[in-house]
Amino acid sequence: MIKIIVFSTALKEQHVKMIEEAASRVNARVCFINSEDGVPEDFKDADVVYGNAFTIAGTYKSLRWLCSPNAGIDKFLVPGFFANPECMLSNSSGSYGVSIAEHIIAQTLMMMRKITLCYKEAINGIWGPQRQQDSIKDSRITCLGTGDIGRTFASRARAFQPRNIIGVSRSGKCDDPNFDTMLKIEELDSILPETDLLVMSLPGTPETENILTKARINLMPKGSYIVNVGRGSAIDEDALAEALLEGHIAGAALDVFKVEPLPKESKLWNVPNLLITPHVAGNMTLLHTINRNVEMFCEDLENYANNRPLRYMVDKNKGY
Amino acid sequence: MIKIIVFSTALKEQHVKMIEEAASRVNARVCFINSEDGVPEDFKDADVVYGNAFTIAGTYKSLRWLCSPNAGIDKFLVPGFFANPECMLSNSSGSYGVSIAEHIIAQTLMMMRKITLCYKEAINGIWGPQRQQDSIKDSRITCLGTGDIGRTFASRARAFQPRNIIGVSRSGKCDDPNFDTMLKIEELDSILPETDLLVMSLPGTPETENILTKARINLMPKGSYIVNVGRGSAIDEDALAEALLEGHIAGAALDVFKVEPLPKESKLWNVPNLLITPHVAGNMTLLHTINRNVEMFCEDLENYANNRPLRYMVDKNKGY
Repeated sequence: MIKIIVFSTALKEQHVKMIEEAASRVNARVCFINSEDGVPEDFKDADVVYGNAFTIAGTYKSLRWLCSPNAGIDKFLVPGFFANPECMLSNSSGSYGVSIAEHIIAQTLMMMRKITLCYKEAINGIWGPQRQQDSIKDSRITCLGTGDIGRTFASRARAFQPRNIIGVSRSGKCDDPNFDTMLKIEELDSILPETDLLVMSLPGTPETENILTKARINLMPKGSYIVNVGRGSAIDEDALAEALLEGHIAGAALDVFKVEPLPKESKLWNVPNLLITPHVAGNMTLLHTINRNVEMFCEDLENYANNRPLRYMVDKNKGY
Repeated sequence: MIKIIVFSTALKEQHVKMIEEAASRVNARVCFINSEDGVPEDFKDADVVYGNAFTIAGTYKSLRWLCSPNAGIDKFLVPGFFANPECMLSNSSGSYGVSIAEHIIAQTLMMMRKITLCYKEAINGIWGPQRQQDSIKDSRITCLGTGDIGRTFASRARAFQPRNIIGVSRSGKCDDPNFDTMLKIEELDSILPETDLLVMSLPGTPETENILTKARINLMPKGSYIVNVGRGSAIDEDALAEALLEGHIAGAALDVFKVEPLPKESKLWNVPNLLITPHVAGNMTLLHTINRNVEMFCEDLENYANNRPLRYMVDKNKGY
């Protein structure tokens, strides 16, 4: 009989019920816990975990499948991380697109419309000078990363009538009609000079580390914008801070950083045209996100129980 | 020969050229000024003004048409305002939809995603507790006002997959497919209890004054949101402040107020879940806005010169 451990902290009653029903369909037993200490004795040989169970992954030799409710799973990819080297890993990329796309649009418009500046001035008694604002309309957007996040963002951004949306990915392939053109990552340098807004949603892998170098930041036009919701490792943070302070980049919004929490002594805190958020773009708080996350686990639970390939399996070599 | 006075402060070189060409096509003379003091002697019998020329409107008996670059023209509607009571008034509603729609989406998402709170916490060393966020996805939106602003907002909001978008207008008619249902203003009370986000873009008229009363605010569900980009006169500001402080309304974003600039002693400054912007949603700074604004004036200049009705004429009785 399959034994499943589920972390239920973020779940609502209806989600617990969804999982119980899915487990009963495949004749599995399931226990719900709030922390890794709370596993009952008779689940210490569990074969499945749904949750970011770092200790369980590193100690349970019985574990055959770990489903992370996160999209980014780079922490699990350290060689030797799993006590059972054969343990399969799936992620929940596909449930965060809606939340993160809304974050990207919000931050982009806040920057382009100088909303924080307006508000700061207003509370200090300076009322409404007409500042030069920018717009998504007629802007040239490049999405570096065309997974669920990039595609969901593009579907929202399209309604704002940008001049174009270019997708850039490892394969250079994506059949989503919201991308006017698809390019391979090797072609990135050719599109940066024609990018008013760069949206980065790359996974944390050796290939994406420091992909946005100082040289590439300088290829972007003066007055352009950058949003990163993927991994902080993708950007040369010092070079970005410099480009922002010089005004070459008009604004940037970072939800992810090389070191998180961002250390108090980081110079990024003192860059006025940088919007910092504490890795909250993909919170698991929207009902839509939790619904989708649980649905995806339940779908793969059925695959697992029937010895079919997992649909949301992570390719440990690619890293996503 | 038609004589035209144009306020050129917000215009770029290409717009001056567009107006010069349009004037030359109808054999008109045009002078460009930066302030009402700057009118040359031989234009003091001008028949047309493109600009918010309050003094000229009140003193030039020669004036036959004033084209305001604004959408809201309530200031011009005071009886006896024009020295020539027959002077026609047109506005530039239609050029601000893009800018104001982006403002509405930005403010809505900032509120729903608790972005200002996250940022304030982060700079104070509190890093990323998972706060309950809300989403445009699956939300019920009511647009009170379905002119250019309401429609342009609805076309953007639609891409975020709300549960529905209801339009409410005086006539109850609007054939824009982005509204699932159209209601008359008299039916407003029936839809407020089913509204998660109320977007107000009404003109300032006697009918819209204090339309959002305390009773109507209380009809909205607990946890709902309000954005107002029309006129401050439309809302009972004291009742809104109270509903925000009680948490009945989760957040509001006001770009317009009963008194502007908002007085320093206003209690609105002390409402934490209220986003205040200093009437900047419809700045004339986006290139798109200026292009459209000038195009509309040039189109009506041709109408005027050929004794055809003005397309963007204001109905002084309706007030828009």
